Amino acid sequence: MSRPERPKQMLALTAEETMLQLTARRTPTGERFAAPIIVANALHADMVEEQLGAIEARAQALILEPMGRNTAPAIALAALAAGEGGGPLLVMPSDHVIGDVGAFHAAIHAAMPAVEAGWLVTFGITPDAPETGYGYIQVGESIGAGIHQVRRFVEKPRREVAEAMIAAGDHAWNGGIFLLRADAYLEALDAFAPEILAAARAAMARAVREGVRILPDAAEFARSPSDSIDYAVMEKAERVAVVPVSMGWSDLGSWDALHAISDCDEAGNACRGEVIAIDTADCLVRAGAGKRVALVGVSDLIVVVDGDDVLILPRGRSQDVKRIIEAMKK
Amino acid sequence: MSRPERPKQMLALTAEETMLQLTARRTPTGERFAAPIIVANALHADMVEEQLGAIEARAQALILEPMGRNTAPAIALAALAAGEGGGPLLVMPSDHVIGDVGAFHAAIHAAMPAVEAGWLVTFGITPDAPETGYGYIQVGESIGAGIHQVRRFVEKPRREVAEAMIAAGDHAWNGGIFLLRADAYLEALDAFAPEILAAARAAMARAVREGVRILPDAAEFARSPSDSIDYAVMEKAERVAVVPVSMGWSDLGSWDALHAISDCDEAGNACRGEVIAIDTADCLVRAGAGKRVALVGVSDLIVVVDGDDVLILPRGRSQDVKRIIEAMKK
Repeated sequence: MSRPERPKQMLALTAEETMLQLTARRTPTGERFAAPIIVANALHADMVEEQLGAIEARAQALILEPMGRNTAPAIALAALAAGEGGGPLLVMPSDHVIGDVGAFHAAIHAAMPAVEAGWLVTFGITPDAPETGYGYIQVGESIGAGIHQVRRFVEKPRREVAEAMIAAGDHAWNGGIFLLRADAYLEALDAFAPEILAAARAAMARAVREGVRILPDAAEFARSPSDSIDYAVMEKAERVAVVPVSMGWSDLGSWDALHAISDCDEAGNACRGEVIAIDTADCLVRAGAGKRVALVGVSDLIVVVDGDDVLILPRGRSQDVKRIIEAMKK
Repeated sequence: MSRPERPKQMLALTAEETMLQLTARRTPTGERFAAPIIVANALHADMVEEQLGAIEARAQALILEPMGRNTAPAIALAALAAGEGGGPLLVMPSDHVIGDVGAFHAAIHAAMPAVEAGWLVTFGITPDAPETGYGYIQVGESIGAGIHQVRRFVEKPRREVAEAMIAAGDHAWNGGIFLLRADAYLEALDAFAPEILAAARAAMARAVREGVRILPDAAEFARSPSDSIDYAVMEKAERVAVVPVSMGWSDLGSWDALHAISDCDEAGNACRGEVIAIDTADCLVRAGAGKRVALVGVSDLIVVVDGDDVLILPRGRSQDVKRIIEAMKK
């Protein structure tokens, strides 16, 4: 369902609203949160504005990347757009699920004193299984109520390593959500990834502006190294903190992840669209608009019908979708 | 895929040609076989002629039933249309598979002397499994080369009964294919089901004829009891014979039956249409025109994609398709 012209964040996967809309709703513009600064692929500009418009939200800036350069440069563009008086930036991917928004808001609250003091803060998701698809954070000494220094970042581990970290009890998943002062981030970039900062600055200096849309200069932005905020900044900076939080988080990295956070019927099925399921258990079934899916006597399957495409695989193997994409390309 | 407006015999299930076309090709018009008399639902008249035309076949008569009254009245219409000098009638459902046409022709040859002497002949399929979905025939004494009296007909048996019949070695499946003289059949109807004969005669007497099309009178035909040739005639008549034959026969009564007669790849998959199968074994997959089906890591599934409908069930449970139809009606 996720395709270059309509990626995951533009799809309604967990609710009637799209991931982008749910993300915008999570921090409604008002006393606590300013209107969002959105960094998106230039191809998706109209779709972003339509989806925000449909929930009566509006970006203060829509930064349209001419090409992807990973998260460190993208966040640099946002930090430069926010300017000096912009307050802390809450950096959220728009394709994550957060089931417990109250817990998220409490975690933001816990992070604020350290953020205002210049710490770069990440949110550490309380792990409920030894996932090998996530990075981990070792939680260090407390620096305030509910907030700790980061002892170290751990890349996606092998299974045994993940199990050991869970057993140790002092590790959290790296949720990829950050809270930081724009100037603190730009300073850290200057120290640890100056080429990224230089490219982002030059791209913004020569940017074209159309209303809230900002089109950074493509030639300048293309000069930026492609790197994540984790590698470029968080793993290198000194004042890096983590707020451990249990908030029903998922990065929806697979169909299995979607099944895990879905509301299921008594038989364990999570069905959307027109689905007839008889003697069927523990399946995730998505029938696209106008499609009808009938199942009898199956269990533990993921079935996705979208347009003229049908995908069928067992639960637990949804990482193998990549193999299908490869086979299709061949 | 089989729907009232386009039933199984009008579909290309086993080859590029439809079941009707394959049935017509089995007895090509020429020295040995006359052009076919086809009995069909009036709704399908154009489709029947189109499909025959596409293989350059032509019916000598296309009898269009105003409503279904099961096989005994349908065959009565054909027998009346054939008239006195029509020679024996080979009665074939147009939705059966016969893999070994040579064996079928040899069986017809073996049956002819008895047929000409007035016997009603059925073909008994050499069983290869204790199927509970078929009727059985107990093969009696020989009355000629390769032909035997029918000792008794057995309705669809329970599993243990089917196993006992297979073990006994003197039972065959009732294939529902008959060879008989039109006058012998009409005489038997007169003796054992006179109401069927009377209704068929009256319907044909008042039939409307348009070229090869014959439209029996609906009011008269409606008076016929609804009964099968097996119940109405074969189980009651005295001179009933069976030609046992092994000819790769299937009534394609289920998706499992289709899988059983399909050519499979090395992994046991029988796929048609655009199918991407990775780590997938022993599946029957049919992707309709313009559809694309991707499977990873599944086995023993039947997957059918037709228009906006998707059907998924395990092999061995394809009789449960009926339950889906019931659920849809509800």
